[in-house]
Amino acid sequence: MPDITDIEAAALRLKGHARRTPLLSSPFLDEIAGRRVFVKAECLQHTGSFKFRGAWSALSALAPGLRAKGVIAFSSGNHAQGVALAAKLHDAPAVIIMPMDAPRIKIENTRALGAEVVLYDRETEDRDAIGDRLSTERGLTLIKPFDDEMVIAGQGTTGLEIAEQAAELGITKADVVVCCGGGGLTSGIALALAARSTGLRARPAEPVGFDDVTRSLATGTRQKNATMSGSLCDAIVTPTPGEITLPIMQRMCGPGIVVTDDEALRAMALAWLRLKIVLEPGGAVALAAALFHGEQITTPDVICVASGGNVDPDIFARALARLAD
Amino acid sequence: MPDITDIEAAALRLKGHARRTPLLSSPFLDEIAGRRVFVKAECLQHTGSFKFRGAWSALSALAPGLRAKGVIAFSSGNHAQGVALAAKLHDAPAVIIMPMDAPRIKIENTRALGAEVVLYDRETEDRDAIGDRLSTERGLTLIKPFDDEMVIAGQGTTGLEIAEQAAELGITKADVVVCCGGGGLTSGIALALAARSTGLRARPAEPVGFDDVTRSLATGTRQKNATMSGSLCDAIVTPTPGEITLPIMQRMCGPGIVVTDDEALRAMALAWLRLKIVLEPGGAVALAAALFHGEQITTPDVICVASGGNVDPDIFARALARLAD
Repeated sequence: MPDITDIEAAALRLKGHARRTPLLSSPFLDEIAGRRVFVKAECLQHTGSFKFRGAWSALSALAPGLRAKGVIAFSSGNHAQGVALAAKLHDAPAVIIMPMDAPRIKIENTRALGAEVVLYDRETEDRDAIGDRLSTERGLTLIKPFDDEMVIAGQGTTGLEIAEQAAELGITKADVVVCCGGGGLTSGIALALAARSTGLRARPAEPVGFDDVTRSLATGTRQKNATMSGSLCDAIVTPTPGEITLPIMQRMCGPGIVVTDDEALRAMALAWLRLKIVLEPGGAVALAAALFHGEQITTPDVICVASGGNVDPDIFARALARLAD
Repeated sequence: MPDITDIEAAALRLKGHARRTPLLSSPFLDEIAGRRVFVKAECLQHTGSFKFRGAWSALSALAPGLRAKGVIAFSSGNHAQGVALAAKLHDAPAVIIMPMDAPRIKIENTRALGAEVVLYDRETEDRDAIGDRLSTERGLTLIKPFDDEMVIAGQGTTGLEIAEQAAELGITKADVVVCCGGGGLTSGIALALAARSTGLRARPAEPVGFDDVTRSLATGTRQKNATMSGSLCDAIVTPTPGEITLPIMQRMCGPGIVVTDDEALRAMALAWLRLKIVLEPGGAVALAAALFHGEQITTPDVICVASGGNVDPDIFARALARLAD
């Protein structure tokens, strides 16, 4: 299990490469939430999501000889772009395995960031077999999206920054709500906060119907989602919590908060209107939890991690349309 | 004329109150521009524009007894919100004079920020007479939008941050393109850069047809805009450069760059897509200049100030629609 020393080491490796994203606020959001709301804008991170931190952490921790051979990742989303850019900046080859039916823009973006994209057919091909073959042939190192100590340590640097920024603002007691998929970001932040700021407690936020972490924390046993499709919050839909991340969250996180897709869209619209940032649905669930489920929060202030902003224009337009309602 | 000492003093007064906004970038924007592009995201400033800096600077520089009587401003836009919030945070009354036909959302926002909004009829009433009467009756101090030394000094703190951030990133030579209306932000930044970073030079960017500053710099004499309406970039449309700001810009700025409304919309869309920030048309003209008029820029890197993000959803939707073209 990674610890605060790993997160501090990751922070040193990330210094000058990842952005220290701002902690934003608006009196209009405070009014809606009934308490002070602070938003850690990780959508402003390189490649538009926190994933760049974990990717940089993992790549920079590799032995140079191994790194020079290259890395491989399975992803059609934010992890793909994070790994592609981190690899490019390390002069390391990156292979990203994506389903053939992934959105064209995501394939193009990943290629434009210098990665080799290998497409597979979800119906007829086994992506793990393709990955294993390429890794063996080329000596590539797999960068997992969340269940990896160096990735968790990288995401945890977000928590170090939150602890510092909260102290600067005089915030001594707050729930820190985190958009949660496999739990890499949530567990990393939880580890950082537990070591650095005892008044701040991480809590996962998830979409309705994809609340495997919330249910795992509530029952004490690993839960699975019944399905993997049907949520607007695709960026944070995973089948089940990670092997490494779940025990950390069980020890250190408060209960999960579950929000609807519509609440995520409204949070996107309010982030656009009041904070001037762009969120994707999966990156807005933490803010939605703070704005619309305040009864589940007991601290005077709340901090939300806005984890990403890679969203298609048509879905964004749907969010903006909610302002008129 | 304000100087670097005034800007440094303003920076001390703003410390802990205004945000140090990030300098963002994306390899995709670099590709379009043919050089490295850095965007100073002042849309992330309190109230969604740089105007909060000047308002805070002016209010915090007032003698306490005068400040307690209150301030007054004429504005239906970003200056109104900046003054309203800065006054509220100083526990000072604020009166904002707005035309009756100003967008309802702007009137509501200004009121929600604690200001008293006084509406007047553009056709039948004289706003200056209303302002004079209120100022005399209540002892209010007028906060001008740009032609005021303390306001210019406050906007100039943006330039101090740009000089620091450029140094951190190893940028030694760059044009700093600034969205320009009356010239408060442009002249403030020019003063700060001239004192702090000799390789950085401020240059105004303006909308086609409203390029009074560009023409004033080119001809050496004060020019006026033929009309005040018809631009999407309403936030930066002013009749003529300021009495204080123009001489500063004449001494310290490079030539202006003029962009079309359509270019501003495309820059908004690209800022949404690649930087995850929300810009209004008038806040996007500097980025539009860097992306689409690179032939007028001679430095290896370019820094653009994205000055504000207060835009209506329908205009924003028009910008996003440009992505599909």
